[in-house]
Amino acid sequence: MKYLLCLCVLLLGSLHAADPLPPLKTDKFQRGPGEDEFGYREAVRVGNTLYLSGNVGKGPMPDGIRQAYGNLQKVLAHYGLTFQHVVKETVYTTQLDALKENRAIRREFYGKDFPAATWVQIDRLFQPEYVIEVDLIAVFPE
Amino acid sequence: MKYLLCLCVLLLGSLHAADPLPPLKTDKFQRGPGEDEFGYREAVRVGNTLYLSGNVGKGPMPDGIRQAYGNLQKVLAHYGLTFQHVVKETVYTTQLDALKENRAIRREFYGKDFPAATWVQIDRLFQPEYVIEVDLIAVFPE
Amino acid sequence: MKYLLCLCVLLLGSLHAADPLPPLKTDKFQRGPGEDEFGYREAVRVGNTLYLSGNVGKGPMPDGIRQAYGNLQKVLAHYGLTFQHVVKETVYTTQLDALKENRAIRREFYGKDFPAATWVQIDRLFQPEYVIEVDLIAVFPE
Repeated sequence: MKYLLCLCVLLLGSLHAADPLPPLKTDKFQRGPGEDEFGYREAVRVGNTLYLSGNVGKGPMPDGIRQAYGNLQKVLAHYGLTFQHVVKETVYTTQLDALKENRAIRREFYGKDFPAATWVQIDRLFQPEYVIEVDLIAVFPE
Repeated sequence: MKYLLCLCVLLLGSLHAADPLPPLKTDKFQRGPGEDEFGYREAVRVGNTLYLSGNVGKGPMPDGIRQAYGNLQKVLAHYGLTFQHVVKETVYTTQLDALKENRAIRREFYGKDFPAATWVQIDRLFQPEYVIEVDLIAVFPE
Repeated sequence: MKYLLCLCVLLLGSLHAADPLPPLKTDKFQRGPGEDEFGYREAVRVGNTLYLSGNVGKGPMPDGIRQAYGNLQKVLAHYGLTFQHVVKETVYTTQLDALKENRAIRREFYGKDFPAATWVQIDRLFQPEYVIEVDLIAVFPE
């Protein structure tokens, strides 16, 4: 019985909703009308942090690497940023060994100033012909 | 010899630990006792940022989409937030094409205010019957 | 015609680059020279936030769990932090069921203070023999 009471308190706790807060001020970057269809923005700035959507590259490798990082470079440039401002990178690829072999191409974009990074191999990306998707977190200098 | 010395300095550097810092102030949301068993919290607020754990949806599609986003909506509401405050979304799904076909369901949760997003198809989620897991970063308005 | 004009404005918009911003101040942790080859840093501190690269563990399980979290612990300690300062964890594993069975090993690292978390099963990690990769976001107390 005590256990049931306890459970109820927990459930009530989990249903509690706080008073709604006002909207958030952001600076979002939309590249084209297709983003409305799939419900995303290319990048969202909030405070000093910029979250970039995953940018993709089509096979074959290593073309996909150049395409993905080239697109990310344009998104960064829209905000006046470069890869020097990137603090975290997550790479999802269907061909991890090919990415490792062609690491020099990716390195050119970063120069000598590298982010924290995670690279994993997965099943499939947004389109079956994509071989790499990279998302980034960048930070604006104060 | 110079090389060995250099290596030692590097290794020593890597073993260095800074003086321990005091604890961090956070506002964590625990929905139930199961979270202790697997060692996670539904969400963690630190400063103005809210990190939400991956919320899952069971198949078949498109039911899983409604379930995952419906659960995330409750976690956000616990803090007084809505999908309008979400700045980054990562979707892990075992059925990417089904997610794309049913994108209208997901879009309803966001309205017209979209986050940066990454969608990838992976092998498997926490339980074999789950078809989607979504984690979010949201930000509190100042 | 109106549509074409509109398209041009959109394309011009997408090509616009803002004036370049100054460099970002960060505190990066490099453990060894191999990080230059693959273009990453073990961790990047910016402001009060620390982004840790994915740390891996070799099979068989559960050894890989101890290895990955043990390495992360050293990276945190370099900055004076512990798992208590971690706010978000993402686990990529090739053996999710083995991770669930051995969850007690991971839990020891966290004690009773858990982060928001996402656990997914994927194809492959950086080396075929790795069974787990974990990346973290930690925050410095003010």
